[in-house]
Amino acid sequence: MTVLTQDQIAALSDTAAFNRWAGFKVVKAEGGNAVLEMPWRADFGQYAGFLHAGLISALLDTVCGFAAVSTAGPVMTSQMSVSFLSPAIGDVFSAEATITKSGRRQVFADAKLIAVKGLARSTVATATAVMIRIETENRGF
Amino acid sequence: MTVLTQDQIAALSDTAAFNRWAGFKVVKAEGGNAVLEMPWRADFGQYAGFLHAGLISALLDTVCGFAAVSTAGPVMTSQMSVSFLSPAIGDVFSAEATITKSGRRQVFADAKLIAVKGLARSTVATATAVMIRIETENRGF
Amino acid sequence: MTVLTQDQIAALSDTAAFNRWAGFKVVKAEGGNAVLEMPWRADFGQYAGFLHAGLISALLDTVCGFAAVSTAGPVMTSQMSVSFLSPAIGDVFSAEATITKSGRRQVFADAKLIAVKGLARSTVATATAVMIRIETENRGF
Amino acid sequence: MTVLTQDQIAALSDTAAFNRWAGFKVVKAEGGNAVLEMPWRADFGQYAGFLHAGLISALLDTVCGFAAVSTAGPVMTSQMSVSFLSPAIGDVFSAEATITKSGRRQVFADAKLIAVKGLARSTVATATAVMIRIETENRGF
Repeated sequence: MTVLTQDQIAALSDTAAFNRWAGFKVVKAEGGNAVLEMPWRADFGQYAGFLHAGLISALLDTVCGFAAVSTAGPVMTSQMSVSFLSPAIGDVFSAEATITKSGRRQVFADAKLIAVKGLARSTVATATAVMIRIETENRGF
Repeated sequence: MTVLTQDQIAALSDTAAFNRWAGFKVVKAEGGNAVLEMPWRADFGQYAGFLHAGLISALLDTVCGFAAVSTAGPVMTSQMSVSFLSPAIGDVFSAEATITKSGRRQVFADAKLIAVKGLARSTVATATAVMIRIETENRGF
Repeated sequence: MTVLTQDQIAALSDTAAFNRWAGFKVVKAEGGNAVLEMPWRADFGQYAGFLHAGLISALLDTVCGFAAVSTAGPVMTSQMSVSFLSPAIGDVFSAEATITKSGRRQVFADAKLIAVKGLARSTVATATAVMIRIETENRGF
Repeated sequence: MTVLTQDQIAALSDTAAFNRWAGFKVVKAEGGNAVLEMPWRADFGQYAGFLHAGLISALLDTVCGFAAVSTAGPVMTSQMSVSFLSPAIGDVFSAEATITKSGRRQVFADAKLIAVKGLARSTVATATAVMIRIETENRGF
């Protein structure tokens, strides 16, 4: 088990082409808790100009992974369930995750996505993830 | 209820900035069944260079929406559950959705994502979605 | 919208044959928060003698419904996603739910199931639910 | 890996107190496909007298487990996602599962619950499950 520090997780995030394109910024990743931010860009819109469900899911999946890596080492996501509470409209989107169980083989997380607009913050989506630990030597994680 | 034709759905897809960036192509959308394709680009990668979970989710969510629109008119996704069966590696990704129930207020879909590599096709993710019908006049869909 | 009081919700629970068989007890149901308890019985076991996934799901679904009814009136569950964190072993099981969003047509909840064994409490499962509001006159709820 | 035959799976089902109470009958369990039936009893009702979500979930979880055991050996469910398409009203309920991926550590299944009423059959719920393989020597499965 190789737990990564926040700096290592930020560096890991930057190795992912999609994370670079989307401008993901690791704000926190320590002890099973992580926060990931992304400023809004018009590129991210769906039909109505709100944040696309793909980016909502990308933020939630990634923040769960970083929370896991910060306490349990490398994982892969097996399953993610996302509830879309409200249209995702904001200047910045902040995804937060907490590990609810770190088992010998599996890691579980809860997460939410907060839309920040000026001083207002509202939860626009929630998620749960099931992740499986991976052996770094086999997967090149 | 305004059911859209395949051409109208393809045009709708192109109004979404993210769909244009990702190169989504509507291959089919009729009678509650839809197929959406996306050729691989290096931009789409996660750490290991496989397709990012965000794009897997984007394809699955979008194809479910198009399947719904083709038989039930405008919807918004309330919930999506994705199972990640295998690392998503391919030249082209093909997302397929089928409506399992089109109710008075809600529409349910099953979907899967197929990775195409040469002549080989393998299912890399499956999903279920719950969508809610929306009134076009209110939402500008 | 007919919000029910805790006493009315307890009475409603007792109209359900399965809830009576399982011995569900409404400990709290007010303002979008609910707690439901069930003492362990050998009847509830799966192969290994732990609490059956069906009862875990029954408790979680029911407590989400009661949390919804306490703040939004009658609902039906559209979707539930359950994560099984640990084997469910206890003397009493306590399910807790909180409404995360009460919209015009849909209500969303988060829930968890706690196994109580002597003084120890551990979370053995978590869940999210999507519910749809129903008109009492049509459904006889 | 100890794959069980249909007869062994039926015997395993009968070791679970809840399965006996509910009258679960293993109709098929072979090669990653399983069918489980349960005749309706008034005991199983929710408020409106329809099949309780807990029993819907119990049937779906159990049939996924039996499908897995028939092709991959012992598993435990990590996550289950259920969509409730229609009120569950019938004389007999038939749950069907198919394994969508049997990996080295995880097994994935799709399932549906069919309500049978006279000659009519309708799908009232669908589900996906993520299961993890367990070592029989450690878990007493």
